[in-house]
Parts: sequence; C-alpha cells; structure tokens
Amino acid sequence: MTRAKPALRVALLGCGVVGSQVVRLLHEQADDLAARVGAPLELAGVAVRRMGRKRDADVDPALLTTDAEALVTRDDVDIVVEVIGGIEPARSLILAAMAHGKSVVSANKALLAEDGATIHRAVRENGADLYFEASVAGAIPLLRPLRESLAGDRVRRVLGIVNGTTNYILDKMDSTGASFNDALEEAQALGYAEADPTADVEGFDAAAKAAILAGIAFHSRVTAADVHREGITEITAADVASAKGMGYVIKLLAICARSDDGRSVGVRVHPAMIPRSHPLAGVREAYNAVFVEAESAGRLMFYGAGAGGAPTASAVLGDIVAVARNRIAGTRGPEESTYADLKVHPMGDSVTRYHVSLDVADKPGVLARVAEIFASHDVSIQTVRQEGRGDDAQLVLVTHRASDAALSGTIKDLRDLNIVRAVASVMRVEGDDTP
Amino acid sequence: MTRAKPALRVALLGCGVVGSQVVRLLHEQADDLAARVGAPLELAGVAVRRMGRKRDADVDPALLTTDAEALVTRDDVDIVVEVIGGIEPARSLILAAMAHGKSVVSANKALLAEDGATIHRAVRENGADLYFEASVAGAIPLLRPLRESLAGDRVRRVLGIVNGTTNYILDKMDSTGASFNDALEEAQALGYAEADPTADVEGFDAAAKAAILAGIAFHSRVTAADVHREGITEITAADVASAKGMGYVIKLLAICARSDDGRSVGVRVHPAMIPRSHPLAGVREAYNAVFVEAESAGRLMFYGAGAGGAPTASAVLGDIVAVARNRIAGTRGPEESTYADLKVHPMGDSVTRYHVSLDVADKPGVLARVAEIFASHDVSIQTVRQEGRGDDAQLVLVTHRASDAALSGTIKDLRDLNIVRAVASVMRVEGDDTP
Repeated sequence: MTRAKPALRVALLGCGVVGSQVVRLLHEQADDLAARVGAPLELAGVAVRRMGRKRDADVDPALLTTDAEALVTRDDVDIVVEVIGGIEPARSLILAAMAHGKSVVSANKALLAEDGATIHRAVRENGADLYFEASVAGAIPLLRPLRESLAGDRVRRVLGIVNGTTNYILDKMDSTGASFNDALEEAQALGYAEADPTADVEGFDAAAKAAILAGIAFHSRVTAADVHREGITEITAADVASAKGMGYVIKLLAICARSDDGRSVGVRVHPAMIPRSHPLAGVREAYNAVFVEAESAGRLMFYGAGAGGAPTASAVLGDIVAVARNRIAGTRGPEESTYADLKVHPMGDSVTRYHVSLDVADKPGVLARVAEIFASHDVSIQTVRQEGRGDDAQLVLVTHRASDAALSGTIKDLRDLNIVRAVASVMRVEGDDTP
Repeated sequence: MTRAKPALRVALLGCGVVGSQVVRLLHEQADDLAARVGAPLELAGVAVRRMGRKRDADVDPALLTTDAEALVTRDDVDIVVEVIGGIEPARSLILAAMAHGKSVVSANKALLAEDGATIHRAVRENGADLYFEASVAGAIPLLRPLRESLAGDRVRRVLGIVNGTTNYILDKMDSTGASFNDALEEAQALGYAEADPTADVEGFDAAAKAAILAGIAFHSRVTAADVHREGITEITAADVASAKGMGYVIKLLAICARSDDGRSVGVRVHPAMIPRSHPLAGVREAYNAVFVEAESAGRLMFYGAGAGGAPTASAVLGDIVAVARNRIAGTRGPEESTYADLKVHPMGDSVTRYHVSLDVADKPGVLARVAEIFASHDVSIQTVRQEGRGDDAQLVLVTHRASDAALSGTIKDLRDLNIVRAVASVMRVEGDDTP
C-alpha cells in the first residue's frame, strides 16, 4: 500500500570498520529498508581520507570522494551519517550538514561528550534532526529507551558496563586469575584492545559515554570534563581474587546518580566491586550492559554488543530509518532536553560503600584505633575481618554508605597511623542495596 | 525556552492497579512531564465501572464517570489511555476514541494479540496515533526498541521470559527444590499469582505477548491463535533437579523464530531448558527479560519488571509523553508494519533440540534399539547417558536440532517399544548454540 516515494539519499562520512558495514547493510537490506521507511534509501557518496585504500565493503568507486565538505552540502543529499569519530573534522562537517538542511546520524561519542553544546545548539538553530544511538554501547538500544520510553519516569541511577575492552580484561582476570598485563595482552591478540589501550583502560572511552548517558537520563548538560575517571591498570590479580572470595566481581562501571536530595548528579567511571548476584555481574567477555534504576520502572537492564562493525552499524541503520521516516513525515526526533539543569557535584560528594584492605601490626588495640579513625570521619563500618600473619595482620573492612570525601579523609589518616603498615587496596562497592 | 502551550487533556479508562498509578504519576510528575512534552498534561476524566469503590489513588471525585463512551468522545479530550484490559468494552472504546481524533495509549495485550487487525486498521483509517509499550513486559522498553532501534536490522529470534508469575514459580522450584504446587501456593500468598492462575501457568498470558512480539519483530501479522502454547503445570521437582544436574534451568519461554529459509516464523510458548550460562538463566523471581538475536546487532537482552502498578504505569507514561509530543508536532508514531507478511508455520516445523528421559529395561541392545528409532526419524543424538537401577535403567538423551514433528514421531515410536517402560520426560532445549 506504500506509494512510491522519491529515494532519500545518504552521504556517509568514513568507511572504516563501521562505515563499511553501513554500506553493506544499505545494499543488502535495501528492500526491507525501503518498506520500513516508505521510500528507498540510496547511497549518494562516501567521504574517505584516501582514495586508494582497500576496504571491507564493496563500494562503487564512483561514490568515493575525499571532499567531505562538498559531499555534506550537496543538494542531492538528505541524510548525513558521520562515522569518522574524533572532534575535527567531524564537528565542522556535522555543522555544515545541518546548516544545509540535512538530517544527521552520528556515532561520535567523543564529540557529543566534549562539545555536545555546539552540536545541540546547531540542531535547535537549524531545526535539524540528530540521532546518535551508536555513540553509546554500540548495538544496544539505550538512548532511545532513555529519551523516549522512560520520558514519563524519573531515573535515579545508571550503572553501566560501557567499555568492552576493559570488561574483557576484567572478566579474564576473574575467570582465569590472570594479571592485568596478561589479560591485556590476550585482549590485544584477539583484537579487543588496541595497540595503545589508553583510551579504554584509563576509562576515557567510558567517561565520554557516561557524560552522554547522564545528560540524557537527568535532562541536564554533562560533558566529559565533568566525569570523575579512574582506570583499571592498577587492579591486581590479588584484588580480583579477594573480591571473588567475598562473592563480588570487579567491573569498570560508568555511574550516573542523582544525589539523595535530587538537586545534583554525580558522574563517575571507576572500577568497583559488585555482588555476583547483581545482573551486571553476569556480563562476560566484551559485552556491554547498562543497568537503570527508575522511580516507577524499578530496575531495568539493557545488554548486548557494545562495539564492532556490524553491531554499531545496526544502531546507525536504526537511526537512519528514524531520520528518514521523520523527513517523510516532515517532523524530527526529540531535541536535547536540559530543562532540569542539574549540576554535576564534585567526586567528594558522591556517596557509596567501600572495601578497604589494610596491612596492620598484629597487636592489641589496632582494630580499636582503626575503627576510631573511620568513626572520626563519620564513616560507619558494616563488616570487618582480621587475619593474623605472624607479626602482621590483614584487616578487611566494608563500610556503609559514605561520601567520597569522608572516605578519602579516612584513608589519609590511616596512612599516617604507624600501626598501619600499608593501605593495600581501596575499592568502591556498588549494586549492593544494603544501606 | 518552551512557550506556554495549551494543556493536553488525558482521559483514563480504568483506575485499578495500573490506572491509579497513572493518576498518581500524572499528578506528582506534572512539572517534569510538562517540561518534557512542551505542554502541561491534565487529567480530563477517569472512567470506572462503579463510583463508590475505594481506590489507591487520590482522584478528584468530580473526574470520575461511569460513562466511558461519553468520556472518550468528549471534545476536550486529546489522549485516551486504556488500562481496562480484555476485549470489550476496551475495543469499542479505543475505536470510538480514534474515530474522534484522539491519540491512544493502551496496555491491552489480549486485545492486541486477539484482534490487533481491527485496532491497527482503525489507526490507519483515522490517521490515529497508537502506542502500546505496556502491553508486553511491563516496564521494559521493548516494543519501541524493536519497532525503531532495530528498524535497520533483521531479527532472527526472540526468546523471552514474559510472564513473571511462572518465572517466580520456576525460580522457586529451581532454588528450593519445591514442587509446582508448593511454589504456586507461595506465589499466590505473595500476590505474584492470582487465585485462578490459569492465564499465567497455562501460558495464555505469555502467548498473547509472543504474538505481539512476533508481529513487530518480523513485520508480519501474528495473532494469539497462531501461537503454540504449553504451560508449566506438569513440570515436576524431578525435572527441575535433573535439569540442574546437567547445568540447565527450566524457564517458560516465549519464542519467536524465523525459519532457516527465512520464509516463515514459528511462535511458541512452552517450558524449556536453557544453559545456566545463558543471560536468561539469571533472571530470578518475577522479573521478565527478552533476548533478541538480530543479524547485525547480535545478541541483545532487555530486562526488568514485567508487571505491577508502578512499573506498568512507567511504560504507559512514556507512551503518553510520546503521543503528546507527536500531537504538538502534528505527527504520529510508526504504524503497524506487516509488509514482510511471513506465515506462521505449524509447530511441527519448529526446529530445536530436545532432552528426552526414558525408563528402560536394563539389558543388552536397548540403547541400540532406542538409537535406531531416533535415526529412523532423522533425529541426531548429541549426548546419551545411561544409569542402571537394578532391572531398570534410565536413559537420558540430548538431541541435535530437529523438527518438532520428527521428535514427536520419535517419541510415539519409543512409547510403542516394549523395552521402553516409560517416557519420563521430554523437554525442549533452547539458548544453546551447539548446532
């Protein structure tokens, strides 16, 4: 019953791992896409950096161009798909495309997290249509559910495993007892980690995603610079084993949480211990999952492949269908929503529980002195376990909820105590509802 | 920056468990909803069956009416929210609302599964806007991701735990060794199961949801009558223990799968064994989860509360925001998509693996005879385990993938074999990628 409508023409910026899958799917699924959109989708051109390169996809050489600027402003282009990544030239190209009335689909987490303000302003000023599902957690439908399905609910907290590389490494450490370095090497050998793994293992990638998630979940503007970030390079096999012994698993989490008074949000990326019974604990290998706690909906989780050419292209294609349908209907998707305008509070105000492991002298009165220091900072202890080892003992404490500032003060004082030989580890504990 | 727009007025049909939460949330979150929609939402009226009843929500008595028909056609109503359930009068009221230009939000799985054709025809004929996220899996954003996020992908298979009552019962049987009847009684005591649990334990509820999911996932029309349905009342503590011993857990699954040749779909609800390593295996208590396998996205899972007043109301509110935004923008959401028009194949054509437990005479040649019968139906055996018990032995076989018809033929012949004392159990095995 669909009337034949003129084709919508797609300009693709970038033809790497994701872009070549987009080309393939636009071709292979042309009939399905046309039926779902109500008009055929046609590839108008593909902007690449160099012409001669070998590519995964069968792209008609006549469609290739190195002049991306000319492509995004061409009259015969309706939709611009940006899968170049990075800040420039992606930003300039997206702005030019919007200024010329194009609908835009982007997978660019770095740009949206660092300078979302510029991009969203251009959306408003041009009355443009922008979708960016693929920027966070690859194939997992996440931004659309947060922006639309949960539009009638209040999100309290988002806990996400949003970086597949670090999840792979931590999962290997957990399942095989490997060291961080050995697990990283394996991840590199399998292509899960890059030769320079900094962006992943130091949490930069997860921090960009956390900023985007927090902004959407809390209807506020959050940038990558607002995100407290710690990586996983200092996690030892002993930390992993100790967590395991207590029924926990260590994951690198992106956490976006409304403060108890509801007036601010904390956004942070760091390794944390979560109970093995928590749905996120079962997320193995390079999979991603995002756990959302909302006032009415309760606990939700979204799970899937967070990276890779085809999975990311699935999210890009979903967005292409959305902007194409919008174009035909003469409408556009929801704009950035920042009306709540919550401030991001400093890390010191973030509240969670802590697992603290101390090497102490094994003599009377040590526990009393240690407990006194926790009390002086108003950090309440939930459990404590002491194991003698000759002259020394190991003291493992788990606290009730306390602010990061109070915990930091406690750790500083503990380090100054001469009966404390060393603070062996400090790890946050998340996803455990014990208050 | 939002200009003050006239309020959008909401008529609510039904004020029970879900409806009273919708009233509460419209009131409590009025400011947030207005900011997200771009106009205030106002409750125009609430249709109830009887006026005097005590209700969970604080509803202004002046808003209550028993004349639902008059309410849905009133000029000052923009959006009609149907949370009555059942076929009539819900269907007539929704049709009347659409004929009068109202946008409709419904949580009615029975109506959409049994007579979706009538409802979707009215959507088309009236150019109406219909959302029904709450009809499947309560709070879990599922239909929007399937209809929109995965619009550029091809779904291969949907495996869902979409009934909380049966999941609670099976989880209790698995974790405590309880019998079906004891677990059902506990579920009833806790309010997870109704006094008459038939709709849940016989799989009717799950079958309605399976029909809706299959229709959306495969762009075809599927009704409740197309769904092969088996309940969980015959699952014994011994079945659960035996599955556990083999590293499996028994779940009631709604399965919608494209056939290997892609030309038809199978839609079925029945208990099945899934490996404990499968993400669905960790879905405990009354939670729901839906696992989606798509060609490009790979394996996705959506997890959350599948029922309950507030969770279901969260999905309803999300849909109210969507239709309200659409009304302001002068647009509407995606219509039913049935272009693929795949046929639902009979159960006999469904292909899966089987776990078969036989009580046999313990004498030479028995295994050979049994194996011969499987082979004669072209059912290939993957593993076999025999345990002697005096005169008798138990033979446990797990097959490779085979059609339901082939398996049924095998079982029939086994029953006729005098060395087979009894076919103790036959259970399908799902979520195990071993071919």
